[in-house]
Order: sequence, then structure tokens, then C-alpha cells
Amino acid sequence: MKTILVTLPVERRHKARLEAAAPGCAFLYVPGAEVTPEQAAGAEAIVGNIAPALIAGADRLELFQLNSAGADMYLKPGVLRDEVLLCNATGAYSKTVAEHGLAVTLALQKKLPLYRDGQRGHVWRDRGLVTSIADATVLVVGLGDIGLHYARLVKALGATVIGLKRRPGEAPDCVDELYTTDRLDEVLPRADVIFSVLPGTPETTHLYTAERFALMKSGAIFVNCGRGSAVETEVLRQALASGQIAAAGVDVTEVEPLPADSPLWDLENLLLTPHVAGEYHLPETFERIVDITAKNLALWLEGKEPTTLVDRKTGYKR
Amino acid sequence: MKTILVTLPVERRHKARLEAAAPGCAFLYVPGAEVTPEQAAGAEAIVGNIAPALIAGADRLELFQLNSAGADMYLKPGVLRDEVLLCNATGAYSKTVAEHGLAVTLALQKKLPLYRDGQRGHVWRDRGLVTSIADATVLVVGLGDIGLHYARLVKALGATVIGLKRRPGEAPDCVDELYTTDRLDEVLPRADVIFSVLPGTPETTHLYTAERFALMKSGAIFVNCGRGSAVETEVLRQALASGQIAAAGVDVTEVEPLPADSPLWDLENLLLTPHVAGEYHLPETFERIVDITAKNLALWLEGKEPTTLVDRKTGYKR
Repeated sequence: MKTILVTLPVERRHKARLEAAAPGCAFLYVPGAEVTPEQAAGAEAIVGNIAPALIAGADRLELFQLNSAGADMYLKPGVLRDEVLLCNATGAYSKTVAEHGLAVTLALQKKLPLYRDGQRGHVWRDRGLVTSIADATVLVVGLGDIGLHYARLVKALGATVIGLKRRPGEAPDCVDELYTTDRLDEVLPRADVIFSVLPGTPETTHLYTAERFALMKSGAIFVNCGRGSAVETEVLRQALASGQIAAAGVDVTEVEPLPADSPLWDLENLLLTPHVAGEYHLPETFERIVDITAKNLALWLEGKEPTTLVDRKTGYKR
Repeated sequence: MKTILVTLPVERRHKARLEAAAPGCAFLYVPGAEVTPEQAAGAEAIVGNIAPALIAGADRLELFQLNSAGADMYLKPGVLRDEVLLCNATGAYSKTVAEHGLAVTLALQKKLPLYRDGQRGHVWRDRGLVTSIADATVLVVGLGDIGLHYARLVKALGATVIGLKRRPGEAPDCVDELYTTDRLDEVLPRADVIFSVLPGTPETTHLYTAERFALMKSGAIFVNCGRGSAVETEVLRQALASGQIAAAGVDVTEVEPLPADSPLWDLENLLLTPHVAGEYHLPETFERIVDITAKNLALWLEGKEPTTLVDRKTGYKR
């Protein structure tokens, strides 16, 4: 009998869905923080992002189902045996992260962070011109599930959308122009808004160099809801402090939590959220993760390929 | 020869458009703050919101073209003779105010003001659950140009939209249910978001009573981009401080500028902007006002009814 170790905060209804998808398996429910090396070592399937050290000792592991879209923690050498099926939760986060990204985009266009600061200081002060999403050219860097959902939202509000993805393909309806990511430098100068939602891989690390910020419009708004590794802290600070671009909104930083003495906190034209776009802040996200897990468990037991298998080389869904 | 006194910050291209619309008229361009009683008294048409006292002395006035949507300042007895054509700038502000309202709505759903506060205090702190515009029932109170534009935006993002307007009519595509404003109490309990964009009239003064806030959902978000007179300061404070509703965003307050000792400034769940949704913060707004003015000047000179004539009884476009 195969043992499935579930480390997510599942409730009764979630357990019923998982158990129906994997009949004949033994289910062990343990909160992620309480998992012992023995429990990990005894499981053929593990559900939920637990400590890489525990995964490294899971000798019987066949399927590892993440509750995150990013898999970077588990791609490092020595963590996961090559034959383990590594699945992410791609798709579960598209709505919550895309909506967060949209809220941040519009807040920056309308200078709401500056008005919030004024409010806290009891200051009734006009902060001048704003911009419109309907008039904006929006560049979506990373047109996966989240990027596509965001593209749909801004397109519905009237924006012109340029999408970048790794592999060439046909542009979906909500994307006016689609290019491969290697053409980033060509399109950066055209964007009023840059929405970046790249996973953390060697290729995306420090992708937004000082040179690339210099290619952006002076009125550009840069929003990062992918991984903090895409921008070096000092490069981001420079681009904002110098007014090279108008504003940025980041939900992710190079080091998280951001150290209390980081120069980023006090940048007036930076809106910083503490990696909250995803997680389970929108309750629907968790329901989606359980659905993906149930589907992948069933496919695995049937000997078929799970739907959200991660390509270990790229860190993306295969 | 008729004299047209233009008090708006027009540039050369705007003057050309106005003068082409009123050939044979004498144009006098004076910044609003510098208009003398003699200049106002000598004009057959005045363009731009100048001091009511100057308007009261404009004995030759036939057409008064406002640059605002609201006409409340000029509806008080003794300001404007009955026979003067009073025109507002309805339509010019729909895009800028609706987008500001949307930005505020999403910012509150995603708790961005709380995250901004955390940022200023160098605190990396998760503020918990958020809500989605796609799952929201949005009540638009005042379905004029601005309300309709806002309805279109939230509908495009997936919301269910209930509209309220004074006069019955057919619901536009972006409105799922349309009722007359007297049914406010019936629909308030259903709304996740209330977007209010009512003009300042006797009927709308203190419309949102404590009883009406009590009818709202505990998770409701209230956004006011109309006139501050719609809510008494103390009633708003109570509803927010008690947690009766989740959050509010107001661009307008009962007294403006808001006094420095107002209890509203420090409410954590209130996002306050200093009456900036409209004005000319989106440059397109001013272009639209010039277009409306040119059209109305031409109609007036032809003896026809201007397009944005205000009904002196209701304060709305006729």
C-alpha cells in the first residue's frame, strides 16, 4: 500500500476529495512544520512544500506535489532524486497574483501610495498628474498562467498588451503582440507598464539590469510578482531613487523577509508588499491546489504523467 | 458682438478650437483667479468655474459653462439668474474618476494601504485574506457617465453589477440589474463593493446614514467619488472604527480640505485621497472639457439647446 503524506492545512472536504482520487492508499495528514524525517522517508507521495532536507531523505518518494508555482527550492543538486515526479501548482495562483498585480499597477498609476503617505501625515496635498490603464502599453514578461490572466485583465480595461514568453507560439486574444523573451530589450522602451512574473531560475536571475532599466520610459511603472531574484536590490534602488522610471511595485525581494535596514523600504515611489500576492490569501487558491493534487495523484496511480510536471532544467511546467 | 470670457488654463490649440466654434465673438482669456467684476459683468458667456459672487454680478450673462460635473456652488439662490443657460462638463470626468474609483476599490480589496503602512514602518507583515473583484457584487449608486464607466470596468473584470439611478430605464450591457435609487436599502445588503458617485444636492446630503451602513455586509467596501456631503463625517468614522464595514475609500469629505484634526485621517481601514480623482490629473479630461465647451458655444450661438444643460432643480444634466 502506498503512503501519501499530506502536509497542507486540509479540512474534511479536502480530505474527501484527495482520498477519492487515490483509493487504496494510506493517507497521513501532518502539518508541514511537524513532519518528521521518518514520516517523509516512509511516503511514496508527499503533498506540500516541506523542508528540502526532509525531501532529500525521502527514499521511497515517487511523487512530490508542491503547493507553489515556483519549484526553485527543490531544484538544487542533492535535494530530489531524478526519478521523482516533481509537480507544481501552476494555475492555482493565476487569479490571486494577477489581481494583486493589477491592483498594484492601478495604485501606482493613480499615486495611491503617495496619497496614503499624505493621509498618515494629515496632509491634504495634490500629487499631480496620473496615467490611464486604457492608454497604456503593458508588457507582460512571462506569459504563463499568471501572466496570461493579468494580460486578460488589463486588456479588458483597454490596454495594449505585449507578451513575452520563452517559446514562440500564437498570441492569445488578449495579447496584441507576442514575442520570445530574448527580444526583451527591443520592447522595453515601448512599455508604460512592465509586469514581470518570472520563476526563479538561473536564466531569470538579475535579468533586470541597470542597462535594462535605462531602456525603460521615464514614466514607466515596473511591477514584479515573480521572484525577487530577477532584480538586484541596488539596481532597483538606483532606478527608483534616480527617477529613471516613475514607480515600481514589488511583492518579492532578493532577500525575504526584506531586512529592516534595506534601502528599499523608504523609497517613496516603490510600493512594497511582503510576498502576499499568492499564498492562500484568496481562499479559492487553496481549493485549486487540492483539485490539482487530486488530479495528479490519480494520474500517478494510473501510471500516467501528472498535469503539472516540472521540467527540472527550466523550473517551468514541462 | 458677444463677449466670451474664458477662465480656463487654455493653450493655443484650445483657443483655436473655441474660436472656430464661435466665429464673430470677442474672446477674453483671463485666469479664473484674476477675473474682475467688470470682466464678468461684460460677458455674454463665461467658461470655467469662477467665484459665485462674480457670477451673481454678471448681468449680461446668457451661457455659463462649468468645467466641473457638479454645479452645486451655483445653484444657491441669488447666484445665477433663471434665464442663464447653465452647462456642466458631464462626460469629461468619466474616465479619470472611474479609473481612480477602480484603483481605490482594488487597493482596498488587496489591503494595499495596510501594506503601505507596513512598508513605511519597515515591517514585513502579512495582513491576511483578500477578496476578488471577479467574485464581487458591485453596487454603483449614481449611474451617470462616471458610474457607467466604472460599471463597465468592473464588469470587464468579472464583477456582478447592480446599478441605481434616479429615473427608471433599460439596463446597459455592463449592468446586470438596474433599479431606481429609492430602492437603495433593498440592494445595500447584497453589495461587496458600493461605489457612490452622486452629485451634491439636497436629496443626496447625508444619504448614507448609520442605518444604511448597518445594512451593508461586514465585509463591504464603500467608495465615494461623488460629493463628501453624501456621508456625515461621524457616521463614516463610526462605520469604519467599529468594523461595521471592512474598508472605505473616499476622494471627497464633508469639509474640504479635511481639517488636520479630523478623526478620519488616522482610520487604518480608510483610504483618503484629497479630491484628486477628477480635475485635470488625466490630461485628456481638459481636452474633453474644451470639446464640450466648443460644442455648447456653437449651439448657443445657433439658438439651440446646449448638450450638457443642468436642471436647476436636480443639479443633474437635464
